[in-house]
Amino acid sequence: MTSKPATNRQWILNQRPVGEPDKDTLRLVETAIPTPGPGEMLLRNEYLSLDPYMRGRMSAAESYTDPVAVGDVMVGGTVSRVIESNLDGYVPGDLVLRYSGWQDYALSNGEMVQRLAGLAQPSWALGVLGMPGFTAWAGLTQIGQPKAGETLVVAAATGPVGATVGQIGKIMGLRVVGIAGGPEKCRFAVEELGFDACIDHRAEDFAKQLEAACLDGIDIYYENVGGKVFQAVLPMLNAHARVPLCGVVAQYNDTKLPDGPDRSGALMARLLARRITVRGFIIFEEFAPLYPQFAAQMTEWISQGKIKYREQIVDGLENAPKAFNGLLKGENFGKLVIRIAD
Amino acid sequence: MTSKPATNRQWILNQRPVGEPDKDTLRLVETAIPTPGPGEMLLRNEYLSLDPYMRGRMSAAESYTDPVAVGDVMVGGTVSRVIESNLDGYVPGDLVLRYSGWQDYALSNGEMVQRLAGLAQPSWALGVLGMPGFTAWAGLTQIGQPKAGETLVVAAATGPVGATVGQIGKIMGLRVVGIAGGPEKCRFAVEELGFDACIDHRAEDFAKQLEAACLDGIDIYYENVGGKVFQAVLPMLNAHARVPLCGVVAQYNDTKLPDGPDRSGALMARLLARRITVRGFIIFEEFAPLYPQFAAQMTEWISQGKIKYREQIVDGLENAPKAFNGLLKGENFGKLVIRIAD
Repeated sequence: MTSKPATNRQWILNQRPVGEPDKDTLRLVETAIPTPGPGEMLLRNEYLSLDPYMRGRMSAAESYTDPVAVGDVMVGGTVSRVIESNLDGYVPGDLVLRYSGWQDYALSNGEMVQRLAGLAQPSWALGVLGMPGFTAWAGLTQIGQPKAGETLVVAAATGPVGATVGQIGKIMGLRVVGIAGGPEKCRFAVEELGFDACIDHRAEDFAKQLEAACLDGIDIYYENVGGKVFQAVLPMLNAHARVPLCGVVAQYNDTKLPDGPDRSGALMARLLARRITVRGFIIFEEFAPLYPQFAAQMTEWISQGKIKYREQIVDGLENAPKAFNGLLKGENFGKLVIRIAD
Repeated sequence: MTSKPATNRQWILNQRPVGEPDKDTLRLVETAIPTPGPGEMLLRNEYLSLDPYMRGRMSAAESYTDPVAVGDVMVGGTVSRVIESNLDGYVPGDLVLRYSGWQDYALSNGEMVQRLAGLAQPSWALGVLGMPGFTAWAGLTQIGQPKAGETLVVAAATGPVGATVGQIGKIMGLRVVGIAGGPEKCRFAVEELGFDACIDHRAEDFAKQLEAACLDGIDIYYENVGGKVFQAVLPMLNAHARVPLCGVVAQYNDTKLPDGPDRSGALMARLLARRITVRGFIIFEEFAPLYPQFAAQMTEWISQGKIKYREQIVDGLENAPKAFNGLLKGENFGKLVIRIAD
């Protein structure tokens, strides 16, 4: 809990990182708290979501969205409280979901704002009930096309996307094998989330363990990490496997291509030999019309106790850069959220 | 034209090739012409289709079908004439499509046989009206999901699949850019097949020329070659591009992975950044129910002069291995067919 600041603290993109973001990547500045004009409202950001996609936004290298300009506030989803309002329909105290970025306050004219109401835990709108949960649900159901009895593998198994993918998979009658970093996360995936197995990718015989856990091969690989995990998964993909592809977090800090040989041609040959579908997607671009269906279904599953959700809340906007670097290395355990105020 | 032999000549898989098939890969043997038993018929094979997929069947390395066993007759589609028949519904003189393989004669009990009738050119049943034409049509329409005005790129542009893909693309209102080996083929693709452009992949500045021909990027890349052509195409794929993947012929003779760096992770990252779909497919496995629709449509297009088709016919079963090796190197010009007899 931080007390209400007299100024608006903002994390500005100071310079584009090469490899892992460092102390020169972001700069904390203090500016005046902005004053809402006619048709505007002032938002106090209470929770800031930290997500792997933000690494892409720091770079000029092509990603699926434009990068943040150097000198601009880092982008990010927030749960925000209306403090002052000159906007019809919003009054002080209202809670909204918005992409206000890494800062204490922001103005809004009401565009791209979603009202939040009735949530026991407002920060869940940044996770299981928001973008990561929707990414999990749509990628698995729309691209993964699961059929009961199939084997689903998902990495980052205790993260907000992976944990949700795996639990939905269990609801749909799949055999679910998670991949996570370390025995504690793996235990959580099996004992708390109900996965059939979870393999520690740090284990030396990781690929062998994965194979032993997927004796019938892999029908759906929900890809959110890339790198060596994908290399281990590829030979196990069954005929007609589906690979929804929403992230390659293990590669985001790479500064050069890995040493050879070049396996890209062999990858394509394998996709052909096994008639595999790989489809890259970003959630709101293609699946936005399905959001209400997702939200209703997920709310029901949560209320029935069928979906569990774990957050790791870090206090203080000032701690966001360090927490974000940990996220890229898998140091968090559960959905990483910065509590700016509450 | 070869005269009717007194024995059945058969090309047997002698040993599995490493790299390009050589003189020890196949062995020509002469066996007795088989005698049809009850419920069987004797077929004289008149035309044998040579197709890139056969290279995969020679290898024990995993492909989408089982390899030919060493000592077995090489597989292949044939247009065959009924010589003797103890099978109801077939009489001597009937023409059928069948996978009789690389040999003069074969027995059949009628399974996996398709009657051919009314074809001005029976060998077309091995090409534009058969497996390659169906592969072109289904891959483009079902996976490629073309929309008028989009840019389609297809390699092996004068081959039976590529030429058909491109011409269907034109019918559907696409901008069509072919890739082929040498100026003669490229000229044919533009002047005879009506492609908007065709780039010679042997040109030193191939990638640059391709870029100049695709100023709006590439929306559909129909993949049948792999290798360096795919490397050039990948950076030009637009957001939401579709890549129907039915072959990587440029890689079939590879005996080891190319030197590094390893671009496989970068390939996946690109599929994500541009939200691309890659889908491997083999034609009859997934699309068989659509065959009547294809056959009717293609017959109509051909009769209207909207689809042109070029064959390269090589006389003599004895010349099949040499012709096949040329096929893998792109030395043929048009659909390669062996005329065994007629």
